[in-house]
Amino acid sequence: MSSLILVRHGQSQWNLENRFTGWWDVDLTDKGEAEAKAAGELMMAKDMRPTVAFTSFQTRAIRTLHIALQAAGRLWIPETKDWRLNERHYGGLTGLDKKETAEKHGEEQVHLWRRSFDTPPPPMARGGLFDLSADDRYANIPVPDAESLKDTIERVVPYYREAIVPVMEAGETVIISAHGNSLRALVKELSGIPDDEITGLEIPTGKPLVYPVENGRVSGERYFLSDG
Amino acid sequence: MSSLILVRHGQSQWNLENRFTGWWDVDLTDKGEAEAKAAGELMMAKDMRPTVAFTSFQTRAIRTLHIALQAAGRLWIPETKDWRLNERHYGGLTGLDKKETAEKHGEEQVHLWRRSFDTPPPPMARGGLFDLSADDRYANIPVPDAESLKDTIERVVPYYREAIVPVMEAGETVIISAHGNSLRALVKELSGIPDDEITGLEIPTGKPLVYPVENGRVSGERYFLSDG
Repeated sequence: MSSLILVRHGQSQWNLENRFTGWWDVDLTDKGEAEAKAAGELMMAKDMRPTVAFTSFQTRAIRTLHIALQAAGRLWIPETKDWRLNERHYGGLTGLDKKETAEKHGEEQVHLWRRSFDTPPPPMARGGLFDLSADDRYANIPVPDAESLKDTIERVVPYYREAIVPVMEAGETVIISAHGNSLRALVKELSGIPDDEITGLEIPTGKPLVYPVENGRVSGERYFLSDG
Repeated sequence: MSSLILVRHGQSQWNLENRFTGWWDVDLTDKGEAEAKAAGELMMAKDMRPTVAFTSFQTRAIRTLHIALQAAGRLWIPETKDWRLNERHYGGLTGLDKKETAEKHGEEQVHLWRRSFDTPPPPMARGGLFDLSADDRYANIPVPDAESLKDTIERVVPYYREAIVPVMEAGETVIISAHGNSLRALVKELSGIPDDEITGLEIPTGKPLVYPVENGRVSGERYFLSDG
């Protein structure tokens, strides 16, 4: 028996400001750092020892991983970063706060974009302030214009199957530090959640979410690691 | 043309206390964190962009890497950790401060251990306070009892040739965040420094030391990246 551990990054500056972040690279707040540290301390206290780490290309998830691993005494484990674990790309909504978005597009449309399974937001304007398609980090990577949750799932789940499952099959306890929607994609896959329910599933920040693993396969339902 | 960048970790708690650290896992001080950040800011200012990172299994080097990369806007590059980049193993001296060491072994003997090329310090007692041979992180790794600088070179240089040179040959700008003696080993190899001179070479903490690289090979003498 081993485990698969999912951690959603702690509070970021734009979570705090209630802005659509997506692929924009925002750092953790002090509160976000404290959440990451608490996650690591909890893993340590519960003797939950990740042996291999995966994370996205985004600072807030990478730093959550590093802070949590250090608190768990495991900063030395191997880590792999991949853009396919990135947050959902919010296209033209990136950088807007809730109020600006509602003013620009109307409340109803915004609700649809946030909660629809397969409707992408409006596309990112190429060359706009938040366009990352020319960023060094995404050279040779097909940066999307915008993604629905379905689009996000279609990159996260194949990556999980191709890159992460073989590591679990080798007996490792994997930790994945990622984002609200890339983790929704995984939970949908691993817990078999239907399309119309997954958009409403909230994954709390900084709380290790654990699946039991047997012979390299998820073998039971998820649970939150807790002090209780 | 690309570059190979070497960074010695910033001040650690035991650097501050003047204790032999070796493989013992000590964190950075606030000053050490500031040194790492300054190294990253300097890389950013001088447009020195590492694309692949290597570091040791030790927190002080890993954190120096992470802090510097974040300051340089490059936290997302791939990183590999390997025990062969660890500090020299100080054996039975681990944990002693300079005064304790002199009282226990005599000034002359201590000077010999610090400056000899091939005399190892006394061996680590198995099961002692600072023995790491049963540590999770070193499972399946031949933890030494003690190392001379020569012993350190004999693991660092083969690792450099086998794991790092091929990455440089692929055109990458490699950054190595490591330790006083593992970096001495590399500088000895790359600058052809004789046995009797290398033990006296001091590599400053937190100052990026750069070798020019052409066609995957170091092609010139090292220099410090500087604001000047």
